[in-house]
Amino acid sequence: MSADLKSYLTQRVAFVDAALDRFVPAAETRPVTIHKAMRHSLFAGGKRLRPILCLAAAEACGGSLENALYAACAVECLHTYSLIHDDLPCMDDDDMRRGVPTCHKVYGEAMALLAGDALQALSFELVAQTPVTHRHSPAAMVLELARTAGSLHLVGGQVADLEGEGRKLPLEDLRYIHESKTAALLASSVKLGGMSADAQLDQVQALHDFGMATGLAFQIIDDILDVTQTTEKLGKSAGKDLASEKSTYPALMGLDASRDEAHRLTEKARQALEVFGPNGYWLHQMADYLLKRDY
Amino acid sequence: MSADLKSYLTQRVAFVDAALDRFVPAAETRPVTIHKAMRHSLFAGGKRLRPILCLAAAEACGGSLENALYAACAVECLHTYSLIHDDLPCMDDDDMRRGVPTCHKVYGEAMALLAGDALQALSFELVAQTPVTHRHSPAAMVLELARTAGSLHLVGGQVADLEGEGRKLPLEDLRYIHESKTAALLASSVKLGGMSADAQLDQVQALHDFGMATGLAFQIIDDILDVTQTTEKLGKSAGKDLASEKSTYPALMGLDASRDEAHRLTEKARQALEVFGPNGYWLHQMADYLLKRDY
Repeated sequence: MSADLKSYLTQRVAFVDAALDRFVPAAETRPVTIHKAMRHSLFAGGKRLRPILCLAAAEACGGSLENALYAACAVECLHTYSLIHDDLPCMDDDDMRRGVPTCHKVYGEAMALLAGDALQALSFELVAQTPVTHRHSPAAMVLELARTAGSLHLVGGQVADLEGEGRKLPLEDLRYIHESKTAALLASSVKLGGMSADAQLDQVQALHDFGMATGLAFQIIDDILDVTQTTEKLGKSAGKDLASEKSTYPALMGLDASRDEAHRLTEKARQALEVFGPNGYWLHQMADYLLKRDY
Repeated sequence: MSADLKSYLTQRVAFVDAALDRFVPAAETRPVTIHKAMRHSLFAGGKRLRPILCLAAAEACGGSLENALYAACAVECLHTYSLIHDDLPCMDDDDMRRGVPTCHKVYGEAMALLAGDALQALSFELVAQTPVTHRHSPAAMVLELARTAGSLHLVGGQVADLEGEGRKLPLEDLRYIHESKTAALLASSVKLGGMSADAQLDQVQALHDFGMATGLAFQIIDDILDVTQTTEKLGKSAGKDLASEKSTYPALMGLDASRDEAHRLTEKARQALEVFGPNGYWLHQMADYLLKRDY
């Protein structure tokens, strides 16, 4: 990572963290436990990729950080709620996340369930406060976020993932899971940033394409790295390893075709940014940061 | 119940059910299981009190049923999500509700968790689609619903209830639980109906007062009936029974004072409706239906 990008990210993380701290009720607010639980997961060391992409998209459209801040914090609250619920015993049953005990390990299952529920509500409370622009109302932004959060995207992807466990999925299903669980919220993050900045419709479309391509490419690269790292680590033949893997892009279409697909999507993400000219600089940098891995 | 009110309720339930059926993805929509699970709980025989109150409030303010319908369905989705999560094993662990197996008994815990999550998202997707009026934007309605759903009201009341289990609570805490868990969503239901009908600010305030007073009175009457029914059933002295009860209004302030409080609140709810004149007819009828019990 360039020193330039590093200092950009550091500054943006601090900006987002300060806003989240203002927007979430203080830990002393009654009922105290729920606010402690919400803050435990919200301030557990997240990289704030979604809010930073949201802010960068707003700037790419000539908007202000201030107007994009509600949406930026909203997508982080929504992301955090989904992690808390994913970690619950009835879901992935994870004890640790980023080196910190998960919400239910510290506060119990009931409180973690409720902390996730409250963070989802908070995400809509925040995005609804975005100042209206000429082209976009805060209600249209709520609609965008709610559809992404609902049964056809985020929750739907989680369901398809759960139901696909232990089975070899058709590529189409795996793509649906990756797009729904990861790419949809990335796309919404940049679209909401653009909408807060009064983006023209072709800019919103470009941000959508950028977010979907970046999200899917990121997930495919993750799949590739999982397989190649496993192969090296276990010293087994790649073919055998692929056969025993859970559904991943390399397992379903092979390593070479997966790399081609990741390249194609990365290129698509970059092309989508052309409409922004030099204002798309930080979105370019973020995409490079997310996608330039040795795969 | 009068034949008049009975036919009114029957007609309104059908109206709300038809709208919900249109707004929720069909059971065949992928991923199929989540939509079946959402529909299982949404169509499990609810009385639709909140949406009917929402529609009645819109009419009291001279508005149309059509414009209030998004908010009406939104409050029912929010209510249903909260029931699904309340019934989960880590919460109240209930197997049955209204004679039907709870969502997690039919679809498993993970799917019930996700069905609740998706219904919360859907409630915001719906309310955000309310047509804008002169005085109220759909974003303001989202804000109203999100605050009611969040850590200071619905979720907050649930937390206080959980934490108060097995302890004798101060009256102030019990009132907080009743107001947060029951009254806040009733108040939001009528306020949102009013907002969809371009209600003046004093009308919105009157609907708020009506909803809070009705919700709290309803809950106190429930508490009273629990105690008096128990006393009769067990044949124990009321004093002993009160002492062993979990925190209820009669346990904390005695039966007579509880009845006085319920009377006072019922009167307050009726007075709040005066501003609507004859247009408040069905809100009056609904309040009578909810509060005219022999307590």
